[in-house]
Amino acid sequence: MATAAKAGQRRGQGARDRILAAADRLFARQGITATGMEQVAEEAPVSKRTLYAHFRTKSELVLAHLRALASSGNTLEGALTREDLPPRERILRLFDLPVTDAGAGAVRGCPFLDAAAEFPDPEDPIHVCAREQKLLMVRLVTALVTELGCAGPAALAEQLVTLADGAAGRAMVLNDPDYGRFARAAAEILLDRALAGNSTATGAKAG
Amino acid sequence: MATAAKAGQRRGQGARDRILAAADRLFARQGITATGMEQVAEEAPVSKRTLYAHFRTKSELVLAHLRALASSGNTLEGALTREDLPPRERILRLFDLPVTDAGAGAVRGCPFLDAAAEFPDPEDPIHVCAREQKLLMVRLVTALVTELGCAGPAALAEQLVTLADGAAGRAMVLNDPDYGRFARAAAEILLDRALAGNSTATGAKAG
Repeated sequence: MATAAKAGQRRGQGARDRILAAADRLFARQGITATGMEQVAEEAPVSKRTLYAHFRTKSELVLAHLRALASSGNTLEGALTREDLPPRERILRLFDLPVTDAGAGAVRGCPFLDAAAEFPDPEDPIHVCAREQKLLMVRLVTALVTELGCAGPAALAEQLVTLADGAAGRAMVLNDPDYGRFARAAAEILLDRALAGNSTATGAKAG
Repeated sequence: MATAAKAGQRRGQGARDRILAAADRLFARQGITATGMEQVAEEAPVSKRTLYAHFRTKSELVLAHLRALASSGNTLEGALTREDLPPRERILRLFDLPVTDAGAGAVRGCPFLDAAAEFPDPEDPIHVCAREQKLLMVRLVTALVTELGCAGPAALAEQLVTLADGAAGRAMVLNDPDYGRFARAAAEILLDRALAGNSTATGAKAG
């Protein structure tokens, strides 16, 4: 490949990354629907022509934003696959988030839940993408509690992710970055009880 | 008061209610920011002049919508003040929601959390209004678990509302109206443990 072509490719990649970083900042600060494509182009900064060359529609940009977040590992789910941590610690890391937005200093919730709230139609590709991430989350936690030998792993995993998503939501609305401490304490109780092998502990009956 | 004036007042009240009902339907179906004032006027139906006579700005309409929801009792918090139910039952009703939107058949999350997600700035009056509702929720639950004689009522209440808000969020993203069953089972475990008087049960240490 010619050097000029390589340089062009690098510039192209740089623009895409700058667009996604700008979208992430703006979506976190003011919401997704409130953010226009023009504003994303200004914030990146790229020309509108470049923006639309990378993302033909706003919906495409939002989906790429969510996928980039998912693969960044900087999500509630991010710690669940960290092979360097023991299974229980990976689960408890769910309660260390959320992150504070560098711009406004506001506490962010789970970007997938928040995107689904902005696009309530269950068939909207953005809602579907958020759902897939939340289903991945519970699959990962189910595998971890199974590895730990917990009773009723499937229902226990749903309880743990419910606590994590609830903590993210309340941390956001209350603007309290430490709000996860309550959910973490509850998770410890549920894990200890399921490890004690009490088969009623995980709510499997209710499932 | 003259009959004509009374009739006018009734018409005025009717228009306001129709506007709020239209806003509720549209916000649930397509999100708040995605809904324009013009569309609310069409859906009500009222003239734009009437709409703006009742609500000078979109923000005023959203705040009135949230306040109407809060006072309707048709919220996660609604059952908490039902004097006809015993305290524990009132708490467990937190997990019977969310409601399904009559229009699109989609499962709604907590409208306060969802509004806060759309208006992430913690100083935005809409975010502040949502926060107040979520703080009211935990105050009500704290009073109920105190009445029940639970150990560590403040931390326990935070855990229970975290479960309720997490269930509402996941029910919405997963479009599963029965998702609250997992959180309910977890809540029963936490309540039983706190009632057994084990002072470590409520995570007070972590607070």
